Amino acid sequence: MADLDPSLHPSVAGLDTVRIVGTGLLGTSIGLKLRELGVRVLLSDPSPTALALARDVGAGEPDPGGVPVTLVVVGAPPDVTASVVAAELAQHPEATVTDVASVKAGIWNAVLESGADITRYVGGHPMAGRERSGPVAARADLFLGRPWVVCPADSTTSSTRTDLARVETVRRLAAAVGASPVVMPAVEHDEAVALISHVPQIAASLVAARLVKASDPAVGLAGQGLRDVTRVADSDPALWAQILTANAVPVGRVLREIRSDLDGLIEALGALGEIPITPGGQKEPIGPNDAIGARATVARVVADGRTGRERIPGKHGEPVTRYAVATVLIPDKPGQLTRLFNDIGAAGINVEEFGLEHSPGQKVGLAGVSVLPAARGALEKALIERGWHVVA
Amino acid sequence: MADLDPSLHPSVAGLDTVRIVGTGLLGTSIGLKLRELGVRVLLSDPSPTALALARDVGAGEPDPGGVPVTLVVVGAPPDVTASVVAAELAQHPEATVTDVASVKAGIWNAVLESGADITRYVGGHPMAGRERSGPVAARADLFLGRPWVVCPADSTTSSTRTDLARVETVRRLAAAVGASPVVMPAVEHDEAVALISHVPQIAASLVAARLVKASDPAVGLAGQGLRDVTRVADSDPALWAQILTANAVPVGRVLREIRSDLDGLIEALGALGEIPITPGGQKEPIGPNDAIGARATVARVVADGRTGRERIPGKHGEPVTRYAVATVLIPDKPGQLTRLFNDIGAAGINVEEFGLEHSPGQKVGLAGVSVLPAARGALEKALIERGWHVVA
Repeated sequence: MADLDPSLHPSVAGLDTVRIVGTGLLGTSIGLKLRELGVRVLLSDPSPTALALARDVGAGEPDPGGVPVTLVVVGAPPDVTASVVAAELAQHPEATVTDVASVKAGIWNAVLESGADITRYVGGHPMAGRERSGPVAARADLFLGRPWVVCPADSTTSSTRTDLARVETVRRLAAAVGASPVVMPAVEHDEAVALISHVPQIAASLVAARLVKASDPAVGLAGQGLRDVTRVADSDPALWAQILTANAVPVGRVLREIRSDLDGLIEALGALGEIPITPGGQKEPIGPNDAIGARATVARVVADGRTGRERIPGKHGEPVTRYAVATVLIPDKPGQLTRLFNDIGAAGINVEEFGLEHSPGQKVGLAGVSVLPAARGALEKALIERGWHVVA
Repeated sequence: MADLDPSLHPSVAGLDTVRIVGTGLLGTSIGLKLRELGVRVLLSDPSPTALALARDVGAGEPDPGGVPVTLVVVGAPPDVTASVVAAELAQHPEATVTDVASVKAGIWNAVLESGADITRYVGGHPMAGRERSGPVAARADLFLGRPWVVCPADSTTSSTRTDLARVETVRRLAAAVGASPVVMPAVEHDEAVALISHVPQIAASLVAARLVKASDPAVGLAGQGLRDVTRVADSDPALWAQILTANAVPVGRVLREIRSDLDGLIEALGALGEIPITPGGQKEPIGPNDAIGARATVARVVADGRTGRERIPGKHGEPVTRYAVATVLIPDKPGQLTRLFNDIGAAGINVEEFGLEHSPGQKVGLAGVSVLPAARGALEKALIERGWHVVA
C-alpha cells in the first residue's frame, strides 16, 4: 500500500513516523489504523512470530533501526511497561513516548525513578478491548468511539511537568484512531478505573465463583440478571492479576468500602436467623437488630445502589436517553427478523436500540425494539396491524 | 368475553374455577392468561382500585363469594403471603392453595405453624417480572418460557407430605400460562435463588453504591462492563428488603463465602501497599505476602469466577450454544437496520441473536449478528459484497 500524504489527514499532523513496541491486540490495531491514514509505522516485538503477524495483517513494517520517530507507543504487558518506556525514552531522545497499560500512576512513578526524561512520557489508556488477544484479533476500528485516557504528569505526586506539546501529540494519536481523548491525571485515572472497571470485575468473579459448587437445578434457574452481573467474569486470570495488583491501593480502598457494607448486611441478616414469619405477617422481636432494623439496612444498600446506577451515562456518553421499548414475539424460523425490520421500515420509524433474546426453554424469541418515546405508539400500532404479537 | 369450553384446552383440565387473591403484576397476568384459555377467574384484592383495574384489563371478575374454587393463587407481598395462604386454606376447604412469593421455606413453615391444612398448600415461584408493577403492567404472556418453581412439602423439615395430585394442579397452572414448571423442595429453592438472584442483586447494589460519590470524569469512563454488572441494581429497595430478609439464612451463608474471598483479596492488595513497580519490572519483596502471593490470590478468585460462569446454561435452558458473531458498523440514520436485515435475508441466513449498541460518544452503532458458526463466513462475505463494514 502506497503511503498517503499525511497532510491530507489533519488529524495525523505531527505523527510522521510512529514506532510501536509490542504488537499485541492494541499495538497492532493502532498500527492498522495509522497505516490506513498514511502514517509510517515501525513495528517491534520480542516475539518474531507476533512481529511477522502484525506486518502481514498490514500494521506496519519491522523497525529497521536508525529511523527518527516522532512518537513511540509501548504496547507491552502492564508489568514490563515501565521498563520498556524507560528504554525507549533513552533510545529515542527526541520522541514522545506513550503506552497503553490500564493502570497509570505506578508506571509513571517507576519511569520517574528510572532517571529517564519523564518530560517526554505521556501515559495513555485506550479503553477498548476484545475477548480475543494478539495481532490476529487486531482491527483498525477497535478504538472507534471509545474513551482514550491521556495522563500528563500528575502534579500531586511531583513538580516535574510533562511538556504540553507532547500531551497534544498523544491526544492526536487517540483522535486519529477514532477514540475520544480524555485528559486526566494518572492518580485520578487509577481511582476511576478501580471504580468503573476493576472492582466490578472482582464483584462479578466473586458472584460467579459461588456457582462452582451449585447444584444443576439451581444453575438451571439462572436468568438474565445473573448473566449480566457475571458476564465480565469470563476473563483471563493472569492478566487480571497483573492489572489488579498494579492498582492495589485504589482497588483496595473501594473493596474495603464494599466490605463495610457487606459486614452490615451479614450482621443484619444473621440477626434474623431462622425466625419464621408468623401467620400474622409479624416477626418476633429479636433484640436490637430486629427485622425492621435488618430491612432498613438492606433497603439502604439497595437504595444507594440505585442512586449510583443512575449516575452511569448513556451509551452516547451523554445523559441517559430514555427510549421506549416495544417487545415483540419472534417465531423461531428463518426470515422473521427481516420481516420485522421491513415492517418497521415501512412504518417510517427509526430504531435506536435493538435486542433479541430467546426465552429459556422455548424456541421463540422476544425482541426489544427501542424507539424515541413519541414513536412508540405508532410503532406498536403498525406492528399489530401487520400481524405481530406485541407483548409490551 | 364468553367463556370457552375448558375441555378444548387440555392444559387447563382441572383448573375449572381459579380464585386469585392479590391483583398485582403477577396475579393479574395469571388471570389474563387463564381468561384467554377460558378458565373462570374470580379476583380479590384489599384495594378496590387494584381490583377494578384487574377486572377492566380482562383478568377476571370480582369474586362474588360462595363459588366453589379448584385453586386459589395468592399474589400478595412476600411478608403477608403466609397469613393470606392460611386464611384461604380455611375459607376454601376443598381447594388447592398456591402462592407466587419469591422465597418459600419460611412461608411453608409459617403456614404449618398456623395449624392450617398444609397438605393442600403447594408453594410456587414464577421467575418472571417486569420493571413496572401493578395490574396495568400485567400481560398474558409474562410467564412465557420462564421457569416456575413448584415446591411440595419439604421432607427435610417435616414429615407432613403434600397431596401429590395438588402438586400436579399447580404444575398445570404453570404450564397453562406458558411457563416451564420445575418441581423443587422449598429449602433447595431458597438456596438456589440466594445464589442465582439474591446475592447477584446485592453485589450489583454494592458496586453501584460506590458510584454515588464518584467524580463526573470517572463515571464518564463507564463502559458496557459496568452497565452489565450493575443493571439489576435499578431495583425497588423496599421490595428487595422484604425478599432478602425473608431468605436471610441462605443469603447470609453465600455472603459470608464472598466476604471470606474478599478478605483474602483485601489482605493481598493491602500487602502490596504503595510499592512502585521498578523499571526492571520486578517488585520489592515485601514479606510473606509479596507481589507473587498477591497475584496468585487474585488470579485464583478470577479463575474460580470463570469456572462458575461457565456453569450458567444457555438461553434455551440447554448447554450454551456458541454462536459465531459478526460485528457490523451501522450508520446512525433511518432505515439502516432494515437494509441490513434485507441483505442478510437475501443471503438466506437465519439470525440466532442480534444486539445493537451505539458506541459511547459517537453517532454510529455496532451490531452483533449471531449465526450458527458454519454460516458466519457466508454472512460476512455477503455483507461485505453489499457494502457493509464488517469489523470482526
